[in-house]
Amino acid sequence: MATTGTDLSRMREMNQLSIVWALRGNPPSTVTELAGRTGLSRPAVDVLVQALVTDGWAAVEEPGAKSVVGRPARRYRFRADAGHALGIDIGVHKILVMLSDLEGNLVRTVRRPADPEADPAARLATVDETVDELLAAAGMTESDIWGLTVGVTGPVDASGRTSLFTPLPGWSTADPAGHLAGRFRCPIQVENDCKLAAVAERWKGVAQDADDIVYLLAGIRTGAGLILDGTLRRGHGGAAGEIGALKAVRWLDAPGHLAACPGVPASARPGEAAAWVFQAAREGNREAKTAVRRYTRDLAVGVAALVLALDPEIVVLGGGFSRSADIILDPLHRELTKHCLRLPELRTSTLGDESVALGGLRLALDDIDDRMLSAELAAPRAPRG
Amino acid sequence: MATTGTDLSRMREMNQLSIVWALRGNPPSTVTELAGRTGLSRPAVDVLVQALVTDGWAAVEEPGAKSVVGRPARRYRFRADAGHALGIDIGVHKILVMLSDLEGNLVRTVRRPADPEADPAARLATVDETVDELLAAAGMTESDIWGLTVGVTGPVDASGRTSLFTPLPGWSTADPAGHLAGRFRCPIQVENDCKLAAVAERWKGVAQDADDIVYLLAGIRTGAGLILDGTLRRGHGGAAGEIGALKAVRWLDAPGHLAACPGVPASARPGEAAAWVFQAAREGNREAKTAVRRYTRDLAVGVAALVLALDPEIVVLGGGFSRSADIILDPLHRELTKHCLRLPELRTSTLGDESVALGGLRLALDDIDDRMLSAELAAPRAPRG
Repeated sequence: MATTGTDLSRMREMNQLSIVWALRGNPPSTVTELAGRTGLSRPAVDVLVQALVTDGWAAVEEPGAKSVVGRPARRYRFRADAGHALGIDIGVHKILVMLSDLEGNLVRTVRRPADPEADPAARLATVDETVDELLAAAGMTESDIWGLTVGVTGPVDASGRTSLFTPLPGWSTADPAGHLAGRFRCPIQVENDCKLAAVAERWKGVAQDADDIVYLLAGIRTGAGLILDGTLRRGHGGAAGEIGALKAVRWLDAPGHLAACPGVPASARPGEAAAWVFQAAREGNREAKTAVRRYTRDLAVGVAALVLALDPEIVVLGGGFSRSADIILDPLHRELTKHCLRLPELRTSTLGDESVALGGLRLALDDIDDRMLSAELAAPRAPRG
Repeated sequence: MATTGTDLSRMREMNQLSIVWALRGNPPSTVTELAGRTGLSRPAVDVLVQALVTDGWAAVEEPGAKSVVGRPARRYRFRADAGHALGIDIGVHKILVMLSDLEGNLVRTVRRPADPEADPAARLATVDETVDELLAAAGMTESDIWGLTVGVTGPVDASGRTSLFTPLPGWSTADPAGHLAGRFRCPIQVENDCKLAAVAERWKGVAQDADDIVYLLAGIRTGAGLILDGTLRRGHGGAAGEIGALKAVRWLDAPGHLAACPGVPASARPGEAAAWVFQAAREGNREAKTAVRRYTRDLAVGVAALVLALDPEIVVLGGGFSRSADIILDPLHRELTKHCLRLPELRTSTLGDESVALGGLRLALDDIDDRMLSAELAAPRAPRG
């Protein structure tokens, strides 16, 4: 069997990559162990791993005292801190920024409140301040960041804007990627908050074992994010999951049943009103229980539409109202039973309000991995950096 | 760079496959041409292609007279007729069986009418007779068939049955795969008719250029099949696309507007009634136009639910009513504009009532290809045969 020059060049690339993947997610490894994992010869591994150390992808671990006979073997580890990623949640009420290394280990999280009525310039200024605080606290600069994702509310179009619809004031023409490109030179993604939350549930949440997931954001707003065959469903124009725009689905009306419940304190803001109703229902208040039943009845129509369209494995209940899953899940399940041919499993999110930033981190890390898998392995630095 | 034994064995398999793929879909090729296409050396190609001829995957073409200097080079072609596939549409009113070679070239089609009220045993007997007629006409036996797919109406569960729902009398416990396994030894797939029609549109229909497709079956029944990221969406339990089960979507009521149109001949069967209404609307009949408007209004709710959930590139209008697309498409487009954030392109199917059997052929061919790509290349015979 003849092997051409092209084959050899491809094979060297493949072999370098297989060393990187054999190092990642494993404890520090010897050349012999790497040879075993990759099927490559020891001399070949030795050459390849030295090159990875030179390039900054791998580090040598000082030999321990475990080997009792002769000189202990040198061990190599993947340098997960060779680069970092950011997930930035630009929410209605908060800015949340999370920093991780290349293996997704969380390094630092910084959060600042945002004014719901702030215009895009003011909101982006808060983003900048939050990023400043995080980088300073981590002892890093922008060039340490290899990839970042911004989460926003509303479907994100190809230009990274929420031109179709967004509840954030003035935000339909805002360009968060363009703004951040002024300081970060790494690739910047912008993605819808529900989609990022869905990604987070599969990465670190309650849906790690599933490939077909409907994520339901249940809160003052109602929304959905879809993972299909293990892949985030963006849609041809970035607008997948926007079933709530259909009037027949009644998601726009659903939270109103909670706000309209008799007995809600007049001074309560929407989120507080909902919390009051859930607590009252928990304590047996008949009117509150009716309000919750009406809410879940309307919520269920949109969930059923997604379940019937996609037949997922799991529906994850997330968003602010998921803290009251104890009284939402049962009536939601009953309503879904009426509508659906077959019911997926219902699970409650445990990620709290970090899910959007977490999902952003995951997308940024995926993007970094994709670039590593293509031509850029030989140069372990921030791409475009 | 050392190359281990495992690498070499994998490489031999890969190289055999690359010869097969370099032969397929190309005119008869010389060893030199194959070497150019695959990047392998001429001597290596010579050895590999001889083995493929011996095994029955490739055939030698007699040299033509084109080479004017010296002996013309031998040419090899992929033996597309080494095996065949069947697509079987078990419809309410007809049984349609299509036969193709391994490259999807249609060899023969046989169709027989079916009694809508026939029980499963009678319907499967008609399937057998139709298959008998086709095999006899093609001069083949069951062992010439390497893969087959059966299309049925209703979502198909993991056992190949339509246990959740089907309009075919008695069919919810019928086992078409089990029945056909009595005569065919190749793998047998059972799939929902709308799903197969969607596959056919991407293979040979109006959606060949798209990866994200909602196929709409518009006829006496209304249904949908989804292609997402180029892959048929089956759903976790085989029930994707069943949005019509949701009452808020009004698909169950939609065709009734046509049947209820004043002036429809009392003797007309449902399909004839619809055709009468479409023709009357075409001629300007005001009541018929109202009926069509009501029909498309209800049809649009379900289409909008799928478009909002998935944000596809294309919606294909198929099914019996697609013959009247000239008067359905415009009002459907207007209704969708009201509901959707962004509109996909609307196209009309041109495959007629062969789309289900065609989609079945495609799935059977995909299955054969998958088996070829795994361990079975070295033995070019019907798997399990």
